[in-house]
Amino acid sequence: MNNSCPFCNIDNQSLAFASVSEFIAIYNISPILPGHSLVIPKKHITSLFELSEDEISDFFSFARRVTSFLCEVYESDAYDWTLQEGTEAGQSVEHLHLHIIPRKPGDMKEGEDWYAQLQQSIDPQNKERNKLSENEYREISLRLSGLWK
Amino acid sequence: MNNSCPFCNIDNQSLAFASVSEFIAIYNISPILPGHSLVIPKKHITSLFELSEDEISDFFSFARRVTSFLCEVYESDAYDWTLQEGTEAGQSVEHLHLHIIPRKPGDMKEGEDWYAQLQQSIDPQNKERNKLSENEYREISLRLSGLWK
Repeated sequence: MNNSCPFCNIDNQSLAFASVSEFIAIYNISPILPGHSLVIPKKHITSLFELSEDEISDFFSFARRVTSFLCEVYESDAYDWTLQEGTEAGQSVEHLHLHIIPRKPGDMKEGEDWYAQLQQSIDPQNKERNKLSENEYREISLRLSGLWK
Repeated sequence: MNNSCPFCNIDNQSLAFASVSEFIAIYNISPILPGHSLVIPKKHITSLFELSEDEISDFFSFARRVTSFLCEVYESDAYDWTLQEGTEAGQSVEHLHLHIIPRKPGDMKEGEDWYAQLQQSIDPQNKERNKLSENEYREISLRLSGLWK
């Protein structure tokens, strides 16, 4: 638990839409595309290298289940995963997180890409970023939570 | 084994610099940055969803070892992982692959990003792409293979 970490925030964790032993899935507060979610450890872990072999296995097995679920809910056959570790890699929040982004034909204009938008969306100076209101965030999280089996 | 798949190509697999039961690590023929490598299954598997629970565990455990190795060899503290599944997600070769890109301060100019370059580098119409010669590729692969423990 780290008080200054947004992913350790109790509200955030209580709005997780899926969970398993050590990990939870939360909706992204600034989604690049509909369905954009994050799989994170419950504990404040910065690096993939802090996980045990069993935890690595649970993390990615759970992430795969979450991906299958999101692709079903958002009617998608494709997805992107990205994991950034270290400031130079673009890691914005120092709490391990895997981005899961369901994809659809034509969901981004030619020349656009989600990676550039990911960087924009986490820039606190960027007023253009698409950040959900607390109500919108809560509503989506509860809807997903209700659908998760 | 799929004859038209570049990742099933025997030369490619024999130039793997690391391997474990079902998976190998190969250098990217069109690296975005030094060290850019791929972890792939030996068998022709298209989707993460074709792997068993044990294989998921082995795949990501091995990928973590490869990442640690590449960060040491390329003197990097940071890395990006990306996995794209489905045409709409940008998957170019229909053989499951995880990109591992070691990162360093200042390795990309502001406004540049590796994701856009990844799309460029796999476009066969793009004459600008930075593709290694066969000799260069073989040399890097053998060097990494010699360093892998």
